[in-house]
Amino acid sequence: MKFSRRVFFGSAASLAAFGRTAFAQATQSPRDPTKAPGTPPSTLGQRSPFEHPQRTPIGIVSRTPLQDLRGTITPADLHYERHHAGVPQIDPANYSLLIHGMVDRPTVFTLADLERLPSTSRICFLECSGNYQRRLTAAMTAQQIAGLTSQSEWTGVTLATLFREVGVRPQATWFLAEGGDAALMTRSIPVDKAHEDAMIVYAQNGEAIRPEQGYPARLLLPGWEGNTSVKWIRRIELSDRAFMTREETSKYTDPLANGTARMFSFVMDARSIITSPSYPGKLSRGSNEIIGIAWSGYERIRRVELSTDGGKTWSAANLQTPVLPKAHTRFHFQWDWDGREAVIMSRAIDETGYVQPTREQLFAARGDGSIPYHLNPITAWVVRPDGTVVCREEGL
Amino acid sequence: MKFSRRVFFGSAASLAAFGRTAFAQATQSPRDPTKAPGTPPSTLGQRSPFEHPQRTPIGIVSRTPLQDLRGTITPADLHYERHHAGVPQIDPANYSLLIHGMVDRPTVFTLADLERLPSTSRICFLECSGNYQRRLTAAMTAQQIAGLTSQSEWTGVTLATLFREVGVRPQATWFLAEGGDAALMTRSIPVDKAHEDAMIVYAQNGEAIRPEQGYPARLLLPGWEGNTSVKWIRRIELSDRAFMTREETSKYTDPLANGTARMFSFVMDARSIITSPSYPGKLSRGSNEIIGIAWSGYERIRRVELSTDGGKTWSAANLQTPVLPKAHTRFHFQWDWDGREAVIMSRAIDETGYVQPTREQLFAARGDGSIPYHLNPITAWVVRPDGTVVCREEGL
Repeated sequence: MKFSRRVFFGSAASLAAFGRTAFAQATQSPRDPTKAPGTPPSTLGQRSPFEHPQRTPIGIVSRTPLQDLRGTITPADLHYERHHAGVPQIDPANYSLLIHGMVDRPTVFTLADLERLPSTSRICFLECSGNYQRRLTAAMTAQQIAGLTSQSEWTGVTLATLFREVGVRPQATWFLAEGGDAALMTRSIPVDKAHEDAMIVYAQNGEAIRPEQGYPARLLLPGWEGNTSVKWIRRIELSDRAFMTREETSKYTDPLANGTARMFSFVMDARSIITSPSYPGKLSRGSNEIIGIAWSGYERIRRVELSTDGGKTWSAANLQTPVLPKAHTRFHFQWDWDGREAVIMSRAIDETGYVQPTREQLFAARGDGSIPYHLNPITAWVVRPDGTVVCREEGL
Repeated sequence: MKFSRRVFFGSAASLAAFGRTAFAQATQSPRDPTKAPGTPPSTLGQRSPFEHPQRTPIGIVSRTPLQDLRGTITPADLHYERHHAGVPQIDPANYSLLIHGMVDRPTVFTLADLERLPSTSRICFLECSGNYQRRLTAAMTAQQIAGLTSQSEWTGVTLATLFREVGVRPQATWFLAEGGDAALMTRSIPVDKAHEDAMIVYAQNGEAIRPEQGYPARLLLPGWEGNTSVKWIRRIELSDRAFMTREETSKYTDPLANGTARMFSFVMDARSIITSPSYPGKLSRGSNEIIGIAWSGYERIRRVELSTDGGKTWSAANLQTPVLPKAHTRFHFQWDWDGREAVIMSRAIDETGYVQPTREQLFAARGDGSIPYHLNPITAWVVRPDGTVVCREEGL
């Protein structure tokens, strides 16, 4: 009866109350779980009703909840999203990849063709080149600040193998990668990247790629800005020059402070962020673990440094091994908090010696009017005396 | 109208027809996905409607679909299940772990307490000691034959850290691990394992452990039979002797051919299985990739060998790097199939030099009346001239 009246009145408040009731029912645990048999085995597992990690769809992107994650693998359903015309639904039976242009044997590969070729797997991150917020306010999460990066184990065939199959000609120096979505997303990629580590991947974290990650197959360019790892890839054209597509002329070009701009700024620079403690977390006095992730498009993370005094002094964090190239690396730092206000921050240093910059250093090079691509500043969190943690307010 | 009549008649056949209609609607892809905008970003991703990986719940277990997987990570919702009294639903706010017995400071840890301690992550397999089928018939999948093993990236605190916190006394040589499920699952574990690599883990593949894997926390004993990695762990008691619990006297003891039995046979021996091609797959003539997984509870897989002639000759497969200790290792082997009937099989060799046995070798040591624990025979697949692949029939 109560239920019917609530639905009948139908106000926002009563619906919210109903939502809470449904949640309470779903999460009603027996007082003593050892006294009642549990649920039997199932075909597909579900999360605990006490856990609610979610992406945040806003406009054209949806961010990974970094503050909820541990380790380095991003569950496939929480991998960040960015697409240029929505997620197409592609029947794998109709999927094909054409490789043509400056090649000896133009070839159409079905998905089955790709799967018959030698496969390889690698764990690496992807990051949107626009993984940035211009203005930081106190109530911002790691997800909002840097949630356009995620990590998976990807499996597929190397582009080098495919290029041998089709006989790429020596004069070919660039290739066009074209997606099968409604944006017909296109980017020009140097052939050298194909010989280095590019792949066409059809599996993610053990299973078929998820639709929003390019099902049934995508290009994977480890360490490079996410948009170049063209999803739903349907065509690769070899050429002796860049194609100068819309996505690399009107967009994905970075103005610099000196008035010029850089194009084809493919590699994502080293970055890190503390994921715990972070907003909206709360800290207790005494020994606490600070954890976060660091990554670089240039091979491995060499070192992560932590500051608990707003950047005056820095100490090395522990890195979780194995430290893989072009991969999220989990760092750990044990910190004894004395209960006084503190500003904590992390900075990544990669194998090239590059040090993750502050906002000030970044804008000295890039200029104030910068398009928000390839911006990787240090993030600072303020731990207040009551233990609440907020983002340090910053912005232009 | 048609829909109503079908539901009204309600026969099995018409319901099946309705199921197919619903599937066809769900998987109706536009003829040209480049001509229609796709779906917008979302909070949680879904699998493509063309993909249906599932565990197979049968009685007390549910197996991982090995034949559908690539790489080495098992998606959390496909991790195999084996529990002794169902999956309890535990409110993490009510969770605690008591460590007592031969310790200086008996301590109750809440989940928050565990999370404040130094954390670490590792990728390793789990395998049920009963990962075995007595009789193999043609229409059996890799899932049915060996699907009681899965792999995750686990995160938590080492048991060595917890043992230092509570001050384990020098005379303590064993500990009891007790689960918080209705089975009150208990096992005795040597303290040495705690110092080697045991962990209390609360995260799996980046997120909170799934309920059927021990939410909110479980013991993890890398390389050891699955039941010892006690789930929903609520109590650890230190002692100077084994506890001789029901699960290690009436069960989890292995009769041997010589009439004796072995107890505390913790470590899972090296094993491998070809996952593709496998039943119900189909092969085409020409170059094909044979892939599978190999694993050992004793450190790393050193080598995997492939035979395509029923075990007469063997060749080394390629191992996917990094090869991690106590972890599923993906192997690859390129095979040119000439269209004649062939029997393909794989065998794993680990760092100790141990070679995965045939069924005959295994039963020479273990006897015919063997309880199906710790049995790791080579699996053979028959490729028929029409390209269909079936399991080679075997059994006592």
